[in-house]
Amino acid sequence: MSVLFFNTMKYRAEDPKNINNDRFILSKGHSAPALYSMWTETGFLKESELLSLCQVESNLEGHPTPKQQFVDVVTGSLGQGLGVACGMAYTGKYFDKSSYHVFCLLGDGELSEGAVWEAMSFASYYQLDNLVAILDINRLGQTDPAPLQHHVEKYQKRCEAFGWHAIIVDGHSVEELCKALSQARHQPTAIIAKTTKGKGIPAVEDKMGWHAKPLSKDMAEGVVKDLQARIMNSSKRLYPTTPVEDAPPVSLRNVRMPSAPAYKQGEKISTRKAYGMALAKLGRYNERVVVLDGDTNNFTYSEIFKNEHPNRFVECYIAQQNMVSVATGCAARERNVVYASTLASFFTRAYDQLRMAAISESNINLCGSHCGLSIGEDGPSQMGLEDLAMFRAIPMATIFYPSDGVSIEKAVELAASTKGMLCSSFMRCFMRCAETLLLTHPCPSQVVYQSAEDKVTVIGAGITLHEALAAAEMLKKERIFIRVIDPFTIKPLDSKTIIEHTRQTRGRILTVEDHYYEGGLGEAVCSAVVNEQGFTLQRLAVAHVPRSGKPNELLKIYGIDREAICQAVRKMLSGSANAK
Amino acid sequence: MSVLFFNTMKYRAEDPKNINNDRFILSKGHSAPALYSMWTETGFLKESELLSLCQVESNLEGHPTPKQQFVDVVTGSLGQGLGVACGMAYTGKYFDKSSYHVFCLLGDGELSEGAVWEAMSFASYYQLDNLVAILDINRLGQTDPAPLQHHVEKYQKRCEAFGWHAIIVDGHSVEELCKALSQARHQPTAIIAKTTKGKGIPAVEDKMGWHAKPLSKDMAEGVVKDLQARIMNSSKRLYPTTPVEDAPPVSLRNVRMPSAPAYKQGEKISTRKAYGMALAKLGRYNERVVVLDGDTNNFTYSEIFKNEHPNRFVECYIAQQNMVSVATGCAARERNVVYASTLASFFTRAYDQLRMAAISESNINLCGSHCGLSIGEDGPSQMGLEDLAMFRAIPMATIFYPSDGVSIEKAVELAASTKGMLCSSFMRCFMRCAETLLLTHPCPSQVVYQSAEDKVTVIGAGITLHEALAAAEMLKKERIFIRVIDPFTIKPLDSKTIIEHTRQTRGRILTVEDHYYEGGLGEAVCSAVVNEQGFTLQRLAVAHVPRSGKPNELLKIYGIDREAICQAVRKMLSGSANAK
Repeated sequence: MSVLFFNTMKYRAEDPKNINNDRFILSKGHSAPALYSMWTETGFLKESELLSLCQVESNLEGHPTPKQQFVDVVTGSLGQGLGVACGMAYTGKYFDKSSYHVFCLLGDGELSEGAVWEAMSFASYYQLDNLVAILDINRLGQTDPAPLQHHVEKYQKRCEAFGWHAIIVDGHSVEELCKALSQARHQPTAIIAKTTKGKGIPAVEDKMGWHAKPLSKDMAEGVVKDLQARIMNSSKRLYPTTPVEDAPPVSLRNVRMPSAPAYKQGEKISTRKAYGMALAKLGRYNERVVVLDGDTNNFTYSEIFKNEHPNRFVECYIAQQNMVSVATGCAARERNVVYASTLASFFTRAYDQLRMAAISESNINLCGSHCGLSIGEDGPSQMGLEDLAMFRAIPMATIFYPSDGVSIEKAVELAASTKGMLCSSFMRCFMRCAETLLLTHPCPSQVVYQSAEDKVTVIGAGITLHEALAAAEMLKKERIFIRVIDPFTIKPLDSKTIIEHTRQTRGRILTVEDHYYEGGLGEAVCSAVVNEQGFTLQRLAVAHVPRSGKPNELLKIYGIDREAICQAVRKMLSGSANAK
Repeated sequence: MSVLFFNTMKYRAEDPKNINNDRFILSKGHSAPALYSMWTETGFLKESELLSLCQVESNLEGHPTPKQQFVDVVTGSLGQGLGVACGMAYTGKYFDKSSYHVFCLLGDGELSEGAVWEAMSFASYYQLDNLVAILDINRLGQTDPAPLQHHVEKYQKRCEAFGWHAIIVDGHSVEELCKALSQARHQPTAIIAKTTKGKGIPAVEDKMGWHAKPLSKDMAEGVVKDLQARIMNSSKRLYPTTPVEDAPPVSLRNVRMPSAPAYKQGEKISTRKAYGMALAKLGRYNERVVVLDGDTNNFTYSEIFKNEHPNRFVECYIAQQNMVSVATGCAARERNVVYASTLASFFTRAYDQLRMAAISESNINLCGSHCGLSIGEDGPSQMGLEDLAMFRAIPMATIFYPSDGVSIEKAVELAASTKGMLCSSFMRCFMRCAETLLLTHPCPSQVVYQSAEDKVTVIGAGITLHEALAAAEMLKKERIFIRVIDPFTIKPLDSKTIIEHTRQTRGRILTVEDHYYEGGLGEAVCSAVVNEQGFTLQRLAVAHVPRSGKPNELLKIYGIDREAICQAVRKMLSGSANAK
């Protein structure tokens, strides 16, 4: 790290977020104290701050967090740094076309994480010659030695097989490191640094059982004394080289649609297709709109964007974890407005990356298509039925659940402008075509069906909103009137509107969702109304792992179709003295 | 697949679940029709069934599911099959010590998934010479060619670098495949099969745009005719070779603790330590109890099991996705009772694998330690604050949230005996020592503090249960009495007890949890009581991404400590006319 910070990297130490700076990601986030020491040496942090490590009033947290300006993304869940670095390097090479480099320091323990090898593939495929990974092969993990121990040649073979230039060095040799880091590159470079953990402290060196453990006071004093004795020019201050200033200024403010949605009332379109069209439209007027996908662009319709703006589309192949990390990297330092899409179910693959992106206060926008059992024949492995639960438990996330072309276009636009609100967004798209309901879609929610005689308030979203509307028509023939609300966002949920209208239907409320019972729309509404007196909430959702079948058949079997809604409404009214 | 099923593999076609059979996993689950064809050819399925593919009344689903006896685990979310195969091969080699082999067919698209390379590492590290992976390099993905196209030599380099014996073959040559598959092995073998997608159908062969698309009727008729003309001995029926019968019979019934928990009332122990001790105890009397961990065994205390039963402990290193897949493989065909542990936060890494394990009806048991912000200094990246939301949205999962040594020991035992109930279990452990509350722990829940004058029912779990008890003592001095319930399981939730006791406290109920607001204990209780009239529910949970700090400081800052509980209780009573 000393070599990187005071020999190799070019940056303005007084301005860690400078867009021209080389980027550094400490993927082995548990080495945070080393990172803090570097920034102390540059003068950015005060030496006196260092001893506040992990204290509650200190911003020097146990693992790097964005409370520090020099931290672009949180690390600490291992194996995620390189994917983020890929996103930054991709941005530097292809979008910024600038000379800054990206350096990522990884531990050997985390090289067991598959996400690292997803990133390795990505970096070589896109020839990210501005990316350097330093692998700290110190042999020792948390409880056991790492599986490849000190076999640096095995690591080299793996890196080379994944298309990297891989150099083995003595990680304690300043000279070897300087030389390796200055080599010309036409591909991403891995510096495989053979190191000894605890080097120079005889009681600790290369021994298990010292991971993340502080030395005793006596030991520490001896070690500090010994280290100080070895410093030959303590008076000489080191200064990093300043960067070339060739990164273009970028403004992500006012990323807006140039015109209102052009759908006609009743026009049919699937929300996923409308997603692709909205992206293309937004991209037409905003140069920094960037779209990622994971070999599903003809499912998610991000291909519409790709066809129109091929240079701003990044194919991430079937590696969802890396896709989310690359998205986070592309969005860092407010360089791009990033959208990434795949099937809603496959975002479960990247939950840890999503969780970490939230802690990083990243503004990535995600779109999960093919949600719920209404996808039909492909069966349960492809059905996103826990995505709402997953995204709801991400702090500060916004969850859009658009039900027509107009609302997905609004969601795409709103997602872009949540910039600076420290929130990422998730858009849930369903597969089938559905009618455009209303030409304006005021946020946060709206009533899409009502009369003065309504007896039950029904809340559906996506496919189940359309089923609710069909149920409303059916029930009308029986002279049973229901009010239907499109919540538009599941998080935040527009509790006020929901409660207000439910009061008007004598406290009767029914939720219908193409999701498991836990953690979705129904529970969100539960939480919102639990303390309302006189309310009766009924819920329809998916109770079991579904099977393959035609969408309509499955909606029926699992009890979330129009008929199930009619029955539930009838039952609520029959059981109630106030029905009439 | 023809070569595998009718030349290489040894199995009893009439008994697909036979313990001596070679195992086959179709990791590229979208090729399900090929799998169904094989089992038709063996006579297990009727040919007439094949045309019911994907129909709602058929068990031939879009991707393989356990509705078919010959499917051990669901596939369809890509890149998961090899990890499961590793678990089966590990079981075959080290636990069963039997001669069956495990074969896994992967697509080239899914080789971008990092989980595949986690499994590759695992297999070579444990020298799984009974494992064969066949890589179908057909070049074409869903929307684009796979990144390495037809460069089979690059795949070979990657496999070799990860410690596999890798053979390139023409995937259409029966002869080459037979030869490659019969080679002696001392390490896992990868057959890199260069194939042409749609081979033999000129309009489709090696062309994009045909993935998962059926041929038109005309085209199909021509193709079938052509294929039939090429069959030279259609009358000759093929029979698979029968397997060697050397797998030991195993019974997983009556996996019980030999004695009751031996803790004393008031004795202090952390639930994670009690977890390790319970595993070791259970393992002492049940030979098929197997424990996995991911380089955290001194955090989760699974090291206690490891030290006592080293041959049944599997170190999976820092690769949580693969750990869950290996667990699923070890548990398949009811071979082992499997426990896998790591930090609760790190299970987010494997949500897709967990989701798929549930669809597979796997009985794996998982333990997440260090839950919540009460872990303290390490900061938010290490804090499991969404794990309950995640596991609650897994159908059929049981979630234990034990609050003392007795209850974790009960949870470990109950988890083992949920066998056959098609459910996996998750145990949430907190970090600090806590007092043993009661010596018997009846399921599903119990009241741990009560009096006749109780005014509010408080539900906490783990650390917050102990905070609730402390609050009860504090409030008692003010002559405010509260009832405290330990729910023991969050899913299923013992609604009956909760509602009954809340009625006795005039409908006042307070939940306190070391988890985000969404999807955890509070929302579970919300769902349970939403239709109870006259109830008032207040909730304390973590509203924001936490920071580093001492556990007690964080409990205080985020408002889930004893003082916050006291305040919430006082507020509930002051706002209420029925307080006295």
